[in-house]
Amino acid sequence: MLIIESIADMRQFVRQAWAAGKTVGLVPTMGALHEGHLTLMRQACAACDVVVASIFVNPIQFGPKEDFAAYPRDLASDSEKAAAAGVAAIFHPSVAEMYPTGFSTYVRVEGITEKLCGRSRPGHFQGVTTVVNKLFHIVQPDKAFFGQKDAQQVLVLQRMVQDLNMDVSLEVVPIVREADGLAKSSRNVYLSPEERQAALVLSRSLAKAQQAVAAGECDVAVLRELVTEEIAAQPLATVDYVELYGYPGLEDIDRLSGRALLALAVKIGRTRLIDNCILEAKACF
Amino acid sequence: MLIIESIADMRQFVRQAWAAGKTVGLVPTMGALHEGHLTLMRQACAACDVVVASIFVNPIQFGPKEDFAAYPRDLASDSEKAAAAGVAAIFHPSVAEMYPTGFSTYVRVEGITEKLCGRSRPGHFQGVTTVVNKLFHIVQPDKAFFGQKDAQQVLVLQRMVQDLNMDVSLEVVPIVREADGLAKSSRNVYLSPEERQAALVLSRSLAKAQQAVAAGECDVAVLRELVTEEIAAQPLATVDYVELYGYPGLEDIDRLSGRALLALAVKIGRTRLIDNCILEAKACF
Repeated sequence: MLIIESIADMRQFVRQAWAAGKTVGLVPTMGALHEGHLTLMRQACAACDVVVASIFVNPIQFGPKEDFAAYPRDLASDSEKAAAAGVAAIFHPSVAEMYPTGFSTYVRVEGITEKLCGRSRPGHFQGVTTVVNKLFHIVQPDKAFFGQKDAQQVLVLQRMVQDLNMDVSLEVVPIVREADGLAKSSRNVYLSPEERQAALVLSRSLAKAQQAVAAGECDVAVLRELVTEEIAAQPLATVDYVELYGYPGLEDIDRLSGRALLALAVKIGRTRLIDNCILEAKACF
Repeated sequence: MLIIESIADMRQFVRQAWAAGKTVGLVPTMGALHEGHLTLMRQACAACDVVVASIFVNPIQFGPKEDFAAYPRDLASDSEKAAAAGVAAIFHPSVAEMYPTGFSTYVRVEGITEKLCGRSRPGHFQGVTTVVNKLFHIVQPDKAFFGQKDAQQVLVLQRMVQDLNMDVSLEVVPIVREADGLAKSSRNVYLSPEERQAALVLSRSLAKAQQAVAAGECDVAVLRELVTEEIAAQPLATVDYVELYGYPGLEDIDRLSGRALLALAVKIGRTRLIDNCILEAKACF
């Protein structure tokens, strides 16, 4: 497996793949690879002839008080895992390679970026759309793979690709969880053993909402309250948001009707975690 | 020559060109084709196997009080001219094809868009970068051709292509002028015979500045004053801006040193015209 650091070399690598008539898959990551990322990579390898994984901790998607400096970085370990998953090349550019002096172009999706994580993290999605736009231009993949864990990110990127007529297919892969339900996340390494246990409140509260919907509950306020109470009962947890929107449009709803996204962001100690599920109302009116 | 109205058909056309091993050139226009556009098309045909010209009056680059509705449109005449210049296909989408309901993604270049036309026309360059970004994704040209008449637009698009790592080469073609010096523009059709004569003040004032520089003048304030006075002497003309910046960085300068962009926007009656030249100081200190 190659580790490629320059944009020029990355372009040359994919040109060679095209010349050989091969399809190219891209898995954009910030590294600290876990089973969620590796699932993306394996699916990419199943669907494409040559798979590139990018590992780039993207400074412009972090707020000034967020964990850019502390974000876990371990290229050696990541490389082993990616190679085992079948990845052909890791694209691992420096910040200066991606954002040289004078850089001043940004891609922004309006509307759906102003809710959920967009409200808690102003500028975050502009950072995501800008870097993914660049990665799509550098690698020019046939398919790019993203995890449903970042449900809003997926919707924002789908919007960008559609609006800007980008010639790439976005493939969305379900959330991968630990045996006890915690969604895999690079930020889970921040958790102390006690916090790790407390973090189960995210998936548990989602499950409660799903059970309530299965039992016929359709009132959005009731469902949000159910989740909020469950989280409030965990002393180490602080709610950032618990939101329920129509899916995939993220429109405001009072009652379930068709699909809805239940999404949460919760601080466990100092670590902010997100999780979500799609609720499907069957008997609401 | 084909006239293609849908994005899907446009993509299919270029895929066929690629399959035949042909290079693709793109000339983005808003129609009302004049000799400037046709020069771009002829150069594109000389440099590329297959040339696409887009004709799309892009609503999002016009301000609310600008001439979007009145902008000259004549597809029949434009088609004849483009075909004669060697263009293989015109891409002529509807506004709904380019900006369907729910469209909400914008590409923005910061910094250099805040001067010159960016100051007079807020939102203009975001409209330009967004539509050109879309056109580049739809047509995926090897080379795209733009006129130096829109000097700031060229700098903004170069910035976008570089920052977003777009895989396209921008080719810049010199200003084409009428025999008496007026820069060719689709908006020249708005001018009455009297205004047409008055409009010569733009190129004449640029020429005065060039003569002054050739005679050793290096003081930016003096050069701006020279141009402003020349325009003020023409009763039908109103200055929007007369600006002189370092080129290509558009940095503020007090004295000429190397290349500088002298750019002007002038209203002749109700018609806003722009013109520019590159000044090259040889003996300044």
